[in-house]
Amino acid sequence: MKEFLCKDFLLENDTAKKLYHEYAKDMPIFDYHCHLSPKEIAEDKKYENITEVWLGGDHYKWRGMRSQGIEEKYITGDGNDKDKFMKWASTIQYCIGNPLYHWTHLELSRYFGVDKQLNEETAEEIWDICNKKLQEASFSAKGLIKRSNVKVICTTDDPIDDLKYHKIIKEDKDFDVKVLPTFRPDKCVSIEKDSFLPWINSLEKVVNYKVNNIDALLKAMNERVQYFHDLGCRIADHGLEGVDYVETEKEEINKIFLKKLANDDINEEEIIKFKSYMLVFFGRLYAKHNWAMQLHMGCIRNANTRMMKFLGPDTGFDTIGDYSIAEGLAGVLDALDKTNELPKTILYNLNPCDNYVLGTLIGCFQNSDAKGKIQFGSGWWFNDQKDGMIKQMTDLANLGMLSNFVGMLTDSRSFLSYTRHEYFRRILCNVIGKWVENGEFPCDMKLLGTIVQNISFNNALNYFEV
Amino acid sequence: MKEFLCKDFLLENDTAKKLYHEYAKDMPIFDYHCHLSPKEIAEDKKYENITEVWLGGDHYKWRGMRSQGIEEKYITGDGNDKDKFMKWASTIQYCIGNPLYHWTHLELSRYFGVDKQLNEETAEEIWDICNKKLQEASFSAKGLIKRSNVKVICTTDDPIDDLKYHKIIKEDKDFDVKVLPTFRPDKCVSIEKDSFLPWINSLEKVVNYKVNNIDALLKAMNERVQYFHDLGCRIADHGLEGVDYVETEKEEINKIFLKKLANDDINEEEIIKFKSYMLVFFGRLYAKHNWAMQLHMGCIRNANTRMMKFLGPDTGFDTIGDYSIAEGLAGVLDALDKTNELPKTILYNLNPCDNYVLGTLIGCFQNSDAKGKIQFGSGWWFNDQKDGMIKQMTDLANLGMLSNFVGMLTDSRSFLSYTRHEYFRRILCNVIGKWVENGEFPCDMKLLGTIVQNISFNNALNYFEV
Amino acid sequence: MKEFLCKDFLLENDTAKKLYHEYAKDMPIFDYHCHLSPKEIAEDKKYENITEVWLGGDHYKWRGMRSQGIEEKYITGDGNDKDKFMKWASTIQYCIGNPLYHWTHLELSRYFGVDKQLNEETAEEIWDICNKKLQEASFSAKGLIKRSNVKVICTTDDPIDDLKYHKIIKEDKDFDVKVLPTFRPDKCVSIEKDSFLPWINSLEKVVNYKVNNIDALLKAMNERVQYFHDLGCRIADHGLEGVDYVETEKEEINKIFLKKLANDDINEEEIIKFKSYMLVFFGRLYAKHNWAMQLHMGCIRNANTRMMKFLGPDTGFDTIGDYSIAEGLAGVLDALDKTNELPKTILYNLNPCDNYVLGTLIGCFQNSDAKGKIQFGSGWWFNDQKDGMIKQMTDLANLGMLSNFVGMLTDSRSFLSYTRHEYFRRILCNVIGKWVENGEFPCDMKLLGTIVQNISFNNALNYFEV
Repeated sequence: MKEFLCKDFLLENDTAKKLYHEYAKDMPIFDYHCHLSPKEIAEDKKYENITEVWLGGDHYKWRGMRSQGIEEKYITGDGNDKDKFMKWASTIQYCIGNPLYHWTHLELSRYFGVDKQLNEETAEEIWDICNKKLQEASFSAKGLIKRSNVKVICTTDDPIDDLKYHKIIKEDKDFDVKVLPTFRPDKCVSIEKDSFLPWINSLEKVVNYKVNNIDALLKAMNERVQYFHDLGCRIADHGLEGVDYVETEKEEINKIFLKKLANDDINEEEIIKFKSYMLVFFGRLYAKHNWAMQLHMGCIRNANTRMMKFLGPDTGFDTIGDYSIAEGLAGVLDALDKTNELPKTILYNLNPCDNYVLGTLIGCFQNSDAKGKIQFGSGWWFNDQKDGMIKQMTDLANLGMLSNFVGMLTDSRSFLSYTRHEYFRRILCNVIGKWVENGEFPCDMKLLGTIVQNISFNNALNYFEV
Repeated sequence: MKEFLCKDFLLENDTAKKLYHEYAKDMPIFDYHCHLSPKEIAEDKKYENITEVWLGGDHYKWRGMRSQGIEEKYITGDGNDKDKFMKWASTIQYCIGNPLYHWTHLELSRYFGVDKQLNEETAEEIWDICNKKLQEASFSAKGLIKRSNVKVICTTDDPIDDLKYHKIIKEDKDFDVKVLPTFRPDKCVSIEKDSFLPWINSLEKVVNYKVNNIDALLKAMNERVQYFHDLGCRIADHGLEGVDYVETEKEEINKIFLKKLANDDINEEEIIKFKSYMLVFFGRLYAKHNWAMQLHMGCIRNANTRMMKFLGPDTGFDTIGDYSIAEGLAGVLDALDKTNELPKTILYNLNPCDNYVLGTLIGCFQNSDAKGKIQFGSGWWFNDQKDGMIKQMTDLANLGMLSNFVGMLTDSRSFLSYTRHEYFRRILCNVIGKWVENGEFPCDMKLLGTIVQNISFNNALNYFEV
Repeated sequence: MKEFLCKDFLLENDTAKKLYHEYAKDMPIFDYHCHLSPKEIAEDKKYENITEVWLGGDHYKWRGMRSQGIEEKYITGDGNDKDKFMKWASTIQYCIGNPLYHWTHLELSRYFGVDKQLNEETAEEIWDICNKKLQEASFSAKGLIKRSNVKVICTTDDPIDDLKYHKIIKEDKDFDVKVLPTFRPDKCVSIEKDSFLPWINSLEKVVNYKVNNIDALLKAMNERVQYFHDLGCRIADHGLEGVDYVETEKEEINKIFLKKLANDDINEEEIIKFKSYMLVFFGRLYAKHNWAMQLHMGCIRNANTRMMKFLGPDTGFDTIGDYSIAEGLAGVLDALDKTNELPKTILYNLNPCDNYVLGTLIGCFQNSDAKGKIQFGSGWWFNDQKDGMIKQMTDLANLGMLSNFVGMLTDSRSFLSYTRHEYFRRILCNVIGKWVENGEFPCDMKLLGTIVQNISFNNALNYFEV
């Protein structure tokens, strides 16, 4: 029996162990998609206690606690920080088979040197140890980033953001990690949402002219992309629910936009048309700037109306959709490719049933523009666990070129999540090691080591060209 | 090589063996969903031969025989019982990789002490052994239940059922197994079916007033729920094909109901509205009574018209659908939760592609009302086999809290199916044992034993509060 | 550690090894579905170099090269054959986890005796070895077929084909392999495509009368089926995207057909009606001739418009769809079964998410007409790899009767693809061996050997009755 979380955690054979310890382990981190706060990095935030840094914004943990029947008071409510930690401790001990169990103990071990299991009996001691450590300099936002061997961080930012914290971070000569913005124009595309008109108003203030027709909107977006580009942005990101695609003309889109500006109702068909048009518009713009476009699809947001009203979005009430996406997504990529304006693209699916759709669709748009130009993105959100990652890697390998994969990202709001890269690399090395030990690929350690190091870091560096 | 069906059947490592033999094996059974006949229990039915008890109503076996090219005469036709058994013996020997092979031999072994494999050569001998045993007292309906260590059985019953056999069973002081009804109002909800109007007529006779508008129907259902409740019912069950949800008002539903009563055609939209309304109505009613609501979804019933006309429903001609269910199901749960009237709920999917939809959706409605208030139900029907169960357990663990799982049920029409609980527990212990042996969870046998015993029995006991 | 591609490649235990080497290995091949050119067989084509035979028409390899960022010039363009081979060598070395890696090295080993891994360093030497071997007589089309121990080949042919090469092959008394046509009337069914009217024109020339109404079309198809039947055809094949089914009458279909003939627009509903009608018409016709009907479903063809215009179809730009197929497919089978005119049928899905839909649907239409009358076809196209095959076999076993499975086919355009049968048999033996070694099925080698030999060859021979 292997000890929990030992040196060879998740490494089940010698090839896997060798690949991880000699090739993958010490590679730096290129975290090309996360939700870290640039403000917290710029201000080098420190944390008072483990509840603040760990439970403050982590809706994965919140969901676990709700499943355990914990009162909301001790999750997002006015319970005190220590009580909340105790409730979390009473939950995590039962999270068998859940990635929270692994992440929690990887973070306790790697950052705090705690190798005990967190449960009701150890909670008090771990609370003290962690809080003491958090007072050390290496536990500030920048401290945690540096000790995690991170070279590049790409945050997620609204087009109207002034990116002032990115500028501040850039000017800090003692902090040699690139912290770059990512352009995420969801509010510009989501014409059906209540946030659309207020966002247009805010945009007008930023660009300093009226955005009262489609040409003005496109002009404004051109300017904002250029603004982001000048500050080092090379990646965009779109959150989609399903993906429907209809070909349209700008004139029609202008009418829909004007209707919306006039606060008239727009119908389902008009929404799809507007979204289709904007997505293709943005894709072309990204291609022009040689950016990579990320599409995250398949989520149903805010499924629980009562809790949405109570806590707002991103509090643990999103779920996996089962939309048909193949034809719509193929339509979007084809529309861009027709005129040779398809940018580098990364496709992420929330429903693992779509793995084979994405894994084959990317193969229809590969060409000599870039190695692995169209990517099937890493196991996302609910798939960001051992089985989900193994499935994504195996499906990608079966259907495309695993060796060109740009690899892992944290997608996290926490500075303690870099251990997910360790988790990913162990799983990657184990998947490859198993193939090799089972005679399915030759044991050429130099080649294997190169593949593993490329997926761990080098592919991302070459792909994103930051 | 491990011997077939040996002591450590399906247990691949020491932790799994220890968990099964020392913790799971002797736990009692809470069979919270089955299709046993209360009449057969009340009358303590005895069986003449193995064909009657085994092949009489088991459409799983019938499908196997048809796949083998056996004539219908020897399946559901007028072939004699011994010939039918012989045909089954000639089929089962080839059922490699099919759960029928395991179930058949588990039942032969556990109930009849037969450890030979059933095939054409052994059939004669096994026929004799089984038929002899069936004459023993411990092979009556009650005998089989008692020797299987069953504490609670929940049958499946129509709202208009008078539950007289449940009353008789309850009064039998020598039989200390709780046999409780489950409220299954499919005929009340399925307004599109030919069975609807005759069912309304029968309902009128039961409640003794005219059910000629929606208020009368709701009143009648209130009464029937109360009637079931008074006889110990704590669970409801709904069979859904796809799940569409539309918000409606009672006035509109009344019009649809009146149209139907007048034998007018109702269209697809009206059917969806009626079903949506009734499902939410029932959910609220269950919440009021603190019942658990089961939703079984994703089946296409009676796919073979010719055989439906010939043999009727539930004869082996149902199949798995591929409906989009995420938005509709989220809509139903949200409609109930909005007013804090969402009951304890168990969601079952027939298409395993929906595992991740259910596994994440339940997480959006958990709260401190109950530990694991919303459950992702055990691998159902075609998924009730080793791979399907492993997938359900693993997916649930990855996405939620496996340790709060209410576990297994037989869903069976046969008194010999309790070995499925053994099958389930072995698989559960093996899944957990593998994690532990591979260093993915600490080897804390007390904690692991508690988790395994909870999933085997205690969670169901606490959850259903019978 | 096991050596790559060693004697026991993919065989992980003793039972698997014994089953493969003693039972499966030497069974002949019944390749009941492929895209080989009857002309090339009839003319006993020889190949100048390895690029011609290997890269000439293999869009699997082309996709791999595009993913690696190779210029189209070296894939389908005017690059010279040696350069193309070198580019392929530089790609294949990185195809870890992809079936191309296995197929490539199986073919190099089994046909050319090359046991080195193909990469940039070995490419020159392998180029020379292969090209030299290709000059030998046993490397002609017929030579490759004979040394592969093939007994029957079913090509894929248009109804208007005169099958002259099939006749020539039949007359060659020195070549005792049956090469039979398969009737594939996609162009007759695809009324929405540009190819429809030209195809009707060609048909008129073949049948020598005007096909200007539906009766004429059906008459013509009756004749062509008879023509194929007389030349030994016993199998039909249909390529479907999604599967929608609507019941219609001939009169309505005639109107749609006449509209199309008059070059009028036909709408989506009319297309579905026409396709539904024709599919049922063909199914009945096949039943009358005791043919097997294959339905291949779930592909999105030509997703990349730009490359379609540049290279035409079947050049590597097809992808997996995510259509709902369960109700439509059930409708088609039921329509045929209603009148007892459902032929033997094999269902293939491109999206592995549909495995459980097909695996259960086949069970609704089995009967004593034939053992395994309705088949769930072998892992198709993108699923034709280790994981896809394991999933298809396991799913079929869980839901139906694996032992009645008609097994593998190459689906290939290349005479070197017969190693896929070896690949399939190794995987099959390993799946079964694992069950046996794990105590899930008795170790009865005679029975197991029979099952394996049946799936390898005998079942197909009995099923297709050629």
